[in-house]
Amino acid sequence: MMDRIGSFDFVAEPFHVDSMERLTLGVLGNHLLNCAGMHAAERGFGMTVLHENRYTWVLSRLAIELSDLPRAYEKFTIRTWVENVYRLFTDRNFMLLDKDGRAIGYARSIWAMIDMDTRKPVDLFSLHGGKISDYVCNEECPIEKPGRIKLSNPEFVGTYQAKYSDIDLNGHVNSIKYIEHILDLFPLDLLCERAVRRFEIAYVAESFYGDMLTFLREKDEKNAYNVEIKRNETDVVVRSRIIFN
Amino acid sequence: MMDRIGSFDFVAEPFHVDSMERLTLGVLGNHLLNCAGMHAAERGFGMTVLHENRYTWVLSRLAIELSDLPRAYEKFTIRTWVENVYRLFTDRNFMLLDKDGRAIGYARSIWAMIDMDTRKPVDLFSLHGGKISDYVCNEECPIEKPGRIKLSNPEFVGTYQAKYSDIDLNGHVNSIKYIEHILDLFPLDLLCERAVRRFEIAYVAESFYGDMLTFLREKDEKNAYNVEIKRNETDVVVRSRIIFN
Repeated sequence: MMDRIGSFDFVAEPFHVDSMERLTLGVLGNHLLNCAGMHAAERGFGMTVLHENRYTWVLSRLAIELSDLPRAYEKFTIRTWVENVYRLFTDRNFMLLDKDGRAIGYARSIWAMIDMDTRKPVDLFSLHGGKISDYVCNEECPIEKPGRIKLSNPEFVGTYQAKYSDIDLNGHVNSIKYIEHILDLFPLDLLCERAVRRFEIAYVAESFYGDMLTFLREKDEKNAYNVEIKRNETDVVVRSRIIFN
Repeated sequence: MMDRIGSFDFVAEPFHVDSMERLTLGVLGNHLLNCAGMHAAERGFGMTVLHENRYTWVLSRLAIELSDLPRAYEKFTIRTWVENVYRLFTDRNFMLLDKDGRAIGYARSIWAMIDMDTRKPVDLFSLHGGKISDYVCNEECPIEKPGRIKLSNPEFVGTYQAKYSDIDLNGHVNSIKYIEHILDLFPLDLLCERAVRRFEIAYVAESFYGDMLTFLREKDEKNAYNVEIKRNETDVVVRSRIIFN
């Protein structure tokens, strides 16, 4: 089964760690998405091939659970594989290994494919004669699936206007920047001393350059916070759930 | 002379490009500093070795000049070498090559070494018996040296409170984040359509978590803007000069 699992090696760069010298979740998220892209590309489902047919992958949900994180200058490895393929979604999982090859984290992601012109979902089995199913792999991923994030009584915690550095090659606020903006809602002490055990994010809609993003947050009973980002105070863009140790 | 020049290969990752699919200057800056670190480490002057003696490199100035930038998914190469070593400073230069090996940019940087406990500069010739001079290389770097950036009558253009994602492993706002925050002062249209020809930054003092940064800007006659970042409205942290095409 090993050939169905992609394995990619990295080093924790000095500007990619926080003040505790731990790799930031934004950088980790970026690496996960890049690994997804490289693994898919190696199997004929990469962005450059898809774009020729005006199709593109869209990340719908991401959940990351961590017992530890690489420190500055340390090597680490990300493994990724496809767990399930449905008609309109695919589940892709990840394992994070530290410099000694010890599993220190896992992640689950859910992706759709859309037609870039109609923005409508594409039937995944219609591509390359359904060949995507050949890559399904039953490697274990011992963390909970991304769930539905519901906010009951959140409080307003800030606004942010989307700037040049937030915008990706599609003209949208990029998936990684949301992760950074969400973590920036919390005090340094909490992030450093307690550290994030689980980070979950659901991408609901796009936001754009100049959009005024509103951040809403609530604390629930279990060391956990739910966050919602709206654009122009009305449309939900992102929901997230952060559980601290 | 080639062994004095370090050469490092990269790929422009999809979340590291802007809406024109060009590598962002922040990411390029990060790569330059990493290349400096790797090149120094390979020659016995890396951070991990220095830290054993409680010494560290401090970036004082950086100037980047570009005729083009790598696009999403393209390979590119950064070469770096030491141009001069003085008692308290060293000049390190860079060349940026596109996927076809064509030089599309150059950069110049000035570094000091300090004692982490006293924060005082260290005599560079006192280390490893002055061996650092052996790495000096007279490769051409056809861009102007970093100059003195003077603001005469700047206007206030914004504030920003330093957050978790700004802070590096030393507890300071990281050198790359300043570059992002400075570019974010300009409209997307200007950055995308005209693009930056030269970006220069002088690191004057440190800023810290929670600091309220104030941004001052002035336009001078030659398509150029000068920017000053102050902390707590008084102390200059960074000065920068941006010249658009």
